[in-house]
Amino acid sequence: MIAVDWGTSSFRAYRLDAQGAVLEARSADKGIMAVPPGPEVLEEVIGAWLDDAPIVMSGMVGSRQGWVEVPYVECPAGLDDLSRSLKKVRWGARAAWIVPGVSCRNAVPDVMRGEEVQVLGAAQEGLICLPGTHSKWVEVRDGRIQRFSTSMTGEVYAVLKQHSILGRMMEESGPQPDAFREGVHRSGDEGGVLHHLFGVRTRGLMGELAPAASAAYLSGLLIGHELRMFCQESFFLLGEPALVSLYQQAAEQLGMKGGALDPRAGTRALYRLGVMLAAKEES
Amino acid sequence: MIAVDWGTSSFRAYRLDAQGAVLEARSADKGIMAVPPGPEVLEEVIGAWLDDAPIVMSGMVGSRQGWVEVPYVECPAGLDDLSRSLKKVRWGARAAWIVPGVSCRNAVPDVMRGEEVQVLGAAQEGLICLPGTHSKWVEVRDGRIQRFSTSMTGEVYAVLKQHSILGRMMEESGPQPDAFREGVHRSGDEGGVLHHLFGVRTRGLMGELAPAASAAYLSGLLIGHELRMFCQESFFLLGEPALVSLYQQAAEQLGMKGGALDPRAGTRALYRLGVMLAAKEES
Repeated sequence: MIAVDWGTSSFRAYRLDAQGAVLEARSADKGIMAVPPGPEVLEEVIGAWLDDAPIVMSGMVGSRQGWVEVPYVECPAGLDDLSRSLKKVRWGARAAWIVPGVSCRNAVPDVMRGEEVQVLGAAQEGLICLPGTHSKWVEVRDGRIQRFSTSMTGEVYAVLKQHSILGRMMEESGPQPDAFREGVHRSGDEGGVLHHLFGVRTRGLMGELAPAASAAYLSGLLIGHELRMFCQESFFLLGEPALVSLYQQAAEQLGMKGGALDPRAGTRALYRLGVMLAAKEES
Repeated sequence: MIAVDWGTSSFRAYRLDAQGAVLEARSADKGIMAVPPGPEVLEEVIGAWLDDAPIVMSGMVGSRQGWVEVPYVECPAGLDDLSRSLKKVRWGARAAWIVPGVSCRNAVPDVMRGEEVQVLGAAQEGLICLPGTHSKWVEVRDGRIQRFSTSMTGEVYAVLKQHSILGRMMEESGPQPDAFREGVHRSGDEGGVLHHLFGVRTRGLMGELAPAASAAYLSGLLIGHELRMFCQESFFLLGEPALVSLYQQAAEQLGMKGGALDPRAGTRALYRLGVMLAAKEES
């Protein structure tokens, strides 16, 4: 079968064997914001695989801006719930299945698309953080996503770096672990994040923070605020190794423990959804 | 004499009579980011006034990117402290004086340039908020700025609206007092500002927040966080009437009282600095 992770900025496909092991992987800069999502992209990037049905796809491909909108499944949600709400898309004689996202409601609604297969593929109970543009903090119990919260940490970092006065004094550089650490520490001071942000500028003005260290300080500040808000003594991290490592450093500094989960979890969940599909078609 | 408020994005000049009353005012889009600040701007915009010495200027004109950098005066700082640190600039036979900014140090440094003359001109003891791109919360006692904190509320609002995913769903509209109120209310929920921001998107996705109401909700959310962080039961507001009115609505909703001060306070402080200069030159 074929597992596809199709997000806002990238397209990643995996050809799996009958046991779910990855035989081959392909990726392209064909996220749904770059190219209109549809059969043309599949034919172009993985045309040679397309006879290996079923094709199961997760991520923003199922959003309003995607191939077809697949309604969210409400929490609590496990793989069996997702499996019952897969949406089939057809082109010519071919077809593929799109996985729904998951929603939950605290005071206001929250949503995810794509992270649900990663979390459920990891098959780990507890609190799981998927760091990124829109970080997710997900509580898993009894094999189901019970509730979750999103933190806009990564996007706030990016827009402040690129478009605010804070970015004007920043210079590109390699890792700056000391400045990152200072930022994490600062997140515990009085005054809140809107105040702490201005310190990126004033410490620069006063010569306490080098231009090459400013971005790392901002990153530590925002990740520190995120961890203090969501994290318990012990949690799990699932995502890109470089970002997971940053979160682990911050967690350790705050006396918390963030164990890394296998980032290939998403492919495993898509495989299991494919197996459920095949069983249903046989029955 | 002539009082000049010369900031990042605008230039405002006032011709004052011997008692400090405004005889004439001129403004131009010649902030220090638009035009290199120097005598050419003065000659062009207020050339006909330039014999009415002294000329006293405040704001970013005294920053590193300004006409000449004038070092910050440390808190506690009153008008007499500013007066001792004015910096003279000359061109041809003419001269003008630039007011220093004020700095203070909590865990990290904080700075202001231009707000100090507004605050000291208002001659109001207590906690004074100057809302804006970089809002200032200033404690005045015994005629001196004792300490202050900056909140990046206005700039965070602007960059998120213009450059983040939150802005993509926003439509321009007139005032949206209900959405603003909902944003202020939301700022008191658990989860912190990085989480609450994502609700601007999810409430839009779920049809709970109209595109025309999204910007007002975001504004209420950020101003709500700022007020909850800095504000006491009663404080004063000094700034643009439209913005002061928004902050007053939010304060009232939170059971606080924000009394508006006369926004022309800055000119009064520049006048008093001019009088001190004249007295010193005579002695």
